[in-house]
Amino acid sequence: MAYPLEQALAVMVTTFHKYSGKEGDKYKLSKAELKELLNKELPVFGSKQMDEAEFRRLMNDLDHDKDSEVDFKEYVCFLACITMGFNEFFKDGPTKQPRKK
Amino acid sequence: MAYPLEQALAVMVTTFHKYSGKEGDKYKLSKAELKELLNKELPVFGSKQMDEAEFRRLMNDLDHDKDSEVDFKEYVCFLACITMGFNEFFKDGPTKQPRKK
Repeated sequence: MAYPLEQALAVMVTTFHKYSGKEGDKYKLSKAELKELLNKELPVFGSKQMDEAEFRRLMNDLDHDKDSEVDFKEYVCFLACITMGFNEFFKDGPTKQPRKK
Repeated sequence: MAYPLEQALAVMVTTFHKYSGKEGDKYKLSKAELKELLNKELPVFGSKQMDEAEFRRLMNDLDHDKDSEVDFKEYVCFLACITMGFNEFFKDGPTKQPRKK
């Protein structure tokens, strides 16, 4: 029997690896890999509307150890922050999945 | 079009609210609510095998602000730690969803 919450955590992992293995360190996201992941997998975040300087700032915010890449821990922290934003959005509305318009 | 990663974050939110609203503070998990959530939604974590003392220790670890409840931020931090555990499990195996035996 599948458990949605367990599947959700697994999706977070498999999505990371879907992009991190494309170039450079197999277990880290380069700037280009991060941009592609956000554009294709998390459009709600709005990375497509970001200009180069804004995206560089985002990368800098996520890259806590300043190695110019985003490792899995940095990625999960980022998703946690986004999830907290989702929660604020949910707290007042009905507790249903967000419907795509 | 649904995006798996966005749905995954939404599931993290809706699962929290499915249990946090049952008793006490609507936006926090009591010890009983946390136990029910873990037992029913995250069996891989193994909370069912925990005795009372072990579960009290877990609750204490998660409850950073020591209000005897787990708020959304504490819950998301907990899930982030579990996801990092999933990632270690995934890093060496194939990048597929974990299959239930």
